[in-house]
Amino acid sequence: MTTTPSPVTIRATDGPGQPERTPQLESLYRQFESELLVPLWAEIGELMPAEPRSKALPHLWRWRNLMPMAEQAGSLVPVGRGGERRAIALANPGLGGRPFATPTLWAAIQYLKPHEDAPVHRHTQNAFRFVVEGEGVWTVVNGDPVAMRRGDFLPQAGWHWHGHHNRSDRPMAWIDGLDIPFQHYTDATFFEFGTDDVGTRETPERSRSERLWAHPGLRPLTHLTPTPATPLLAYRWEYTDRALSDQLALEAEGCTATVEPGHAAVRYTNPTTGGDVLPTLRTEFHRLAPDTATAAVREVGSSVFQVFDGTGEVTVGEARWTVERGDLFVVPSWTTLSLATDTGLDLFRFSDTPVFERLHLDRTYQEGPHA
Amino acid sequence: MTTTPSPVTIRATDGPGQPERTPQLESLYRQFESELLVPLWAEIGELMPAEPRSKALPHLWRWRNLMPMAEQAGSLVPVGRGGERRAIALANPGLGGRPFATPTLWAAIQYLKPHEDAPVHRHTQNAFRFVVEGEGVWTVVNGDPVAMRRGDFLPQAGWHWHGHHNRSDRPMAWIDGLDIPFQHYTDATFFEFGTDDVGTRETPERSRSERLWAHPGLRPLTHLTPTPATPLLAYRWEYTDRALSDQLALEAEGCTATVEPGHAAVRYTNPTTGGDVLPTLRTEFHRLAPDTATAAVREVGSSVFQVFDGTGEVTVGEARWTVERGDLFVVPSWTTLSLATDTGLDLFRFSDTPVFERLHLDRTYQEGPHA
Amino acid sequence: MTTTPSPVTIRATDGPGQPERTPQLESLYRQFESELLVPLWAEIGELMPAEPRSKALPHLWRWRNLMPMAEQAGSLVPVGRGGERRAIALANPGLGGRPFATPTLWAAIQYLKPHEDAPVHRHTQNAFRFVVEGEGVWTVVNGDPVAMRRGDFLPQAGWHWHGHHNRSDRPMAWIDGLDIPFQHYTDATFFEFGTDDVGTRETPERSRSERLWAHPGLRPLTHLTPTPATPLLAYRWEYTDRALSDQLALEAEGCTATVEPGHAAVRYTNPTTGGDVLPTLRTEFHRLAPDTATAAVREVGSSVFQVFDGTGEVTVGEARWTVERGDLFVVPSWTTLSLATDTGLDLFRFSDTPVFERLHLDRTYQEGPHA
Amino acid sequence: MTTTPSPVTIRATDGPGQPERTPQLESLYRQFESELLVPLWAEIGELMPAEPRSKALPHLWRWRNLMPMAEQAGSLVPVGRGGERRAIALANPGLGGRPFATPTLWAAIQYLKPHEDAPVHRHTQNAFRFVVEGEGVWTVVNGDPVAMRRGDFLPQAGWHWHGHHNRSDRPMAWIDGLDIPFQHYTDATFFEFGTDDVGTRETPERSRSERLWAHPGLRPLTHLTPTPATPLLAYRWEYTDRALSDQLALEAEGCTATVEPGHAAVRYTNPTTGGDVLPTLRTEFHRLAPDTATAAVREVGSSVFQVFDGTGEVTVGEARWTVERGDLFVVPSWTTLSLATDTGLDLFRFSDTPVFERLHLDRTYQEGPHA
Repeated sequence: MTTTPSPVTIRATDGPGQPERTPQLESLYRQFESELLVPLWAEIGELMPAEPRSKALPHLWRWRNLMPMAEQAGSLVPVGRGGERRAIALANPGLGGRPFATPTLWAAIQYLKPHEDAPVHRHTQNAFRFVVEGEGVWTVVNGDPVAMRRGDFLPQAGWHWHGHHNRSDRPMAWIDGLDIPFQHYTDATFFEFGTDDVGTRETPERSRSERLWAHPGLRPLTHLTPTPATPLLAYRWEYTDRALSDQLALEAEGCTATVEPGHAAVRYTNPTTGGDVLPTLRTEFHRLAPDTATAAVREVGSSVFQVFDGTGEVTVGEARWTVERGDLFVVPSWTTLSLATDTGLDLFRFSDTPVFERLHLDRTYQEGPHA
Repeated sequence: MTTTPSPVTIRATDGPGQPERTPQLESLYRQFESELLVPLWAEIGELMPAEPRSKALPHLWRWRNLMPMAEQAGSLVPVGRGGERRAIALANPGLGGRPFATPTLWAAIQYLKPHEDAPVHRHTQNAFRFVVEGEGVWTVVNGDPVAMRRGDFLPQAGWHWHGHHNRSDRPMAWIDGLDIPFQHYTDATFFEFGTDDVGTRETPERSRSERLWAHPGLRPLTHLTPTPATPLLAYRWEYTDRALSDQLALEAEGCTATVEPGHAAVRYTNPTTGGDVLPTLRTEFHRLAPDTATAAVREVGSSVFQVFDGTGEVTVGEARWTVERGDLFVVPSWTTLSLATDTGLDLFRFSDTPVFERLHLDRTYQEGPHA
Repeated sequence: MTTTPSPVTIRATDGPGQPERTPQLESLYRQFESELLVPLWAEIGELMPAEPRSKALPHLWRWRNLMPMAEQAGSLVPVGRGGERRAIALANPGLGGRPFATPTLWAAIQYLKPHEDAPVHRHTQNAFRFVVEGEGVWTVVNGDPVAMRRGDFLPQAGWHWHGHHNRSDRPMAWIDGLDIPFQHYTDATFFEFGTDDVGTRETPERSRSERLWAHPGLRPLTHLTPTPATPLLAYRWEYTDRALSDQLALEAEGCTATVEPGHAAVRYTNPTTGGDVLPTLRTEFHRLAPDTATAAVREVGSSVFQVFDGTGEVTVGEARWTVERGDLFVVPSWTTLSLATDTGLDLFRFSDTPVFERLHLDRTYQEGPHA
Repeated sequence: MTTTPSPVTIRATDGPGQPERTPQLESLYRQFESELLVPLWAEIGELMPAEPRSKALPHLWRWRNLMPMAEQAGSLVPVGRGGERRAIALANPGLGGRPFATPTLWAAIQYLKPHEDAPVHRHTQNAFRFVVEGEGVWTVVNGDPVAMRRGDFLPQAGWHWHGHHNRSDRPMAWIDGLDIPFQHYTDATFFEFGTDDVGTRETPERSRSERLWAHPGLRPLTHLTPTPATPLLAYRWEYTDRALSDQLALEAEGCTATVEPGHAAVRYTNPTTGGDVLPTLRTEFHRLAPDTATAAVREVGSSVFQVFDGTGEVTVGEARWTVERGDLFVVPSWTTLSLATDTGLDLFRFSDTPVFERLHLDRTYQEGPHA
């Protein structure tokens, strides 16, 4: 029926509910294989576990190891059309060598040399940049140049044209987050080349999107229709920092403002809906005051964290690391996460949770005496 | 059948489609009256006009007339329990002497003397305050003291406890906007007395709600559920002013940022949804650059405007006024509004438009050669 | 300032919180009046009651009285262009003789003689027809002829063209429900004449809308966008009757299917959203098994009921009536309703509840030992 | 850093934008590999194609081949606890021998012998059954026995308890559709065993869910909250058949009722929302009148079709088959589908489209002269 050789091999197993392995059964299995059929009873253990068992593993990448390699790539690898970006992706050790931080999430360090441009393209993948250090690059989204500086979060929704230009005399690196693995697996990816030139050399302090949108609770009358992704292209560090400080101060005054004692957190949101900034990606910033430990939590869906400042102890499933500025780690689905710090810890986080919430598959479990 | 004397009187009319006025018809009409019945054909002209014909009239109230009366009320009228507030409402000349600015909207000037308190109560009516001049009063909403200063917009959703206290040595006046007439007509009003004392004497620069919510695009993780009304209790003038200036500057750079040339405008929104700040009330701020004239527009629903700064010419239906700081005027439903200014004009506006949008009854018509 | 004579008269009152009635106060009140101002403290008792105090009164109209008058109107009143419809509206005794069943709802008996037509028009008011007896008329909505028969509910959303034709040799009467008072008060009404002729003489068993939409849970792929009002133009009695019988049978089997013991009820819904059939009107059918009494309930918003079959005792606030087929009664906002029957009672109900739900003003209170 | 051997191997390639393959670059690549890093420029061709290039292939499974194998499985394979179900899944030839019809969809034939039970369990996977022939089995969902008969569609939302019992003297087979591959890949799966016994031996004509919900446009007042999945557990063939016949008859009368000439189609929907029946799965039924050919269409997302009746020609990408009753075929994402029939063709279809619509990744392209 098909010219593709059948790759099916039935894994006969023993155990409760499994059929007796007779010659007739083996014969039937050979028929299944030739007809491209697989019985549920031979696969149910793996396909329908009692709870998610991700192939992805907890893993930590050290910023102090990543940066020198990014610099080397700067001297060896061009950034023009074809390669598109000098981006180096985290490859989860459980995912067969693919450049996937988790089954759904892409995380990479991107590096741009002084006076270098990254050419314009667009793709259906939702993307963002987060800056752990440096400045001097403007990302140009649909013609709007957006400055990138330490602590800034810069979302960029699917199918928006975008390039970058570095107008400074110093290189700059940042992290990119995207839903590449999700869209790749589900076959939803479109990509289109734009101009090689980013089209503008402007270096404004504030982008046009910020001048339209970065006023708390105020919406321009020209833009009243809700959009699936945020129209605000930069969430500046000064606001994030202040929001977190305010939460900890409110907590000290006895108000409900923190997730748990000493743990402040904000979610980046789309001002046209109040919901997540991008349809497939959730992004948050967490601040732990000195001498804080979080509850242990498990969630459906996977996350990537980057340490923005401070130091702390991170426990993900069986893994335990001491982390510092720039370090990146992944939390696979339904794997327990807890954080602790003596000195204080600032963390950026992104996850695929909107996928599960929109499909009513989200679930959270908080461990502890009162859970 | 009922002990209430029947108040029905059929208004027999002539014209196309109307029945011949025979004795039999008159007899039938008397039967209708005694049974509390009214035929559509006698009322259709008024009940089903080709387009809305509001009983409300365009009208202007001068701030320079209002303020002295508010001051007099300050010396003659107490502000304690029973009267509840020293608020003086605009009574549209077409609405039978009722304190209704339009059939749905209440607008009043409220006045608080030095060191005076307004007692705590709550009601289902949605409310807000807008400050055209002065400062020194804190409105305390569910225990959170919120400073009031020139240019600030302070929403306060239905069924929230609230009182005010003036901690300064000077009186202060501002305007209140509510949906009292709408809820009164539709029989939806609940009211409850709280404590006579406002409960706090704090005078913080920023309210707790601002510390939680006034960070653009950032949402506390403790407050992720959408709420029907905004949780942000103060929209400060500095942000509104900057947003409007940004729009005019963007327009000058060739970007789409203004409603029409020289006309910047923002809507106050609920950060949990991106929608209107209150379920029944829309609130906006409009800025006209010098030498600007707006298109003539008609909308289903009524509005109240207050001049915040500048001077201009206002045309509402057949009425035409020159306006200045503090002046208030009403625009009845489906009545044409246009604005013009030589010197620049800043306007606060509120309307009942969310009622019509949520019921799919909204309609807008813009006049002009290209309409 | 205005040429309209000021109609304002301040009602000075005594009581807690009210100012002392000095000459200075009287002088201030005269100034208020001349400036079209009304102080809140003089009106707060009426405008802000502890709970809704509707001007509308509970009232009952007897079908046996209405029908003969409708028949007389049939011989005395034409039904052509201008009068538009031979509809006779219920005028609540508390609402000043206006043809308003409640402040928001219109209810009328409409009568069409044999071989008579009602001309085509459209209006923003949402409307429906409910048939308590008879048949032979087709209402033609946007060109689609829809048969009307006993027990059928026929919604017809705002701004749809519609006329009626009676193709039989017998007259027919039914009730119309609309949101005329609501749209009149809020100034939202548009109206347009169509053709005098209804345009079709077809008398199909099933309308096109039913052939597209009256299949449970099935949606045509040509019509996938949600619409504010239902696209289904007839909800047939056979389905309503069966749904109610099924609920009572399920209750007898021990399942949760009825509102309370012996009380089955369905809501007519928009198959494109699952919500109310019209943006401003809720419509339901209630069946009380023999020997059933309902709990006493109060709701924000008003209702009109028509008895479809059976007999019973109705208590609305202080009023109490024995009702039978065709009788119509109104329940004002926040007025207690309870029903009881020995023989069984079928009731059609419509209300303005969607207005309150969409504006977050809905509230319900159920009395009783466990409330 | 990790004890897992690094599985990363960089695939260095040539071409525009690719770096020169120098010893220094090779050395850098080895560092990448040891640190679990992969550069974008080496993968971009596969990860970011111009449009989706699914690994899944078009494929057809013949019912006449499937059924004898299902019968053999009936004699060789038990259906009790552990194996859970006698279900045999389609394994797409492009997906490495996994029992996945497409990257997101599971499709299987399930077989139950006379008087056999399938034990109770629940899982987060959304599921449904569709019956191409036979009867005699009741699926018991949360205790509600639901008859299964030719043409019926029986959805069953995630985390509902369910088992089956065959009360007849004949075996029965049907197809199951689930989102197993999607939930497996994204690590969202939970599973729980229930009782071995299905708990009821009832064989009602209509399930309780049908008695509550299968009344067009009518909603029980006890169930007014929208639910993510449909509460209606059976969509009976008589309604589907009638809806499709009605559409073709309406088309013949000149009305807009069919997707394209001769092509009628309904979507199964959730009556509480009007949306898809299950959060991750779209289900539809298509009828082609004799001598009909459809336009060629491509969509983001994958589908599985089963022929319910008739014969026709199916073209999926490069593949072309003549199909008949029971045959199953898959359409990978963004692969062109067209259908043609001389004799008439009835088709059941399910797809993963809700995933893409809810994440704003859906896209459709219709080929042809007028596209």
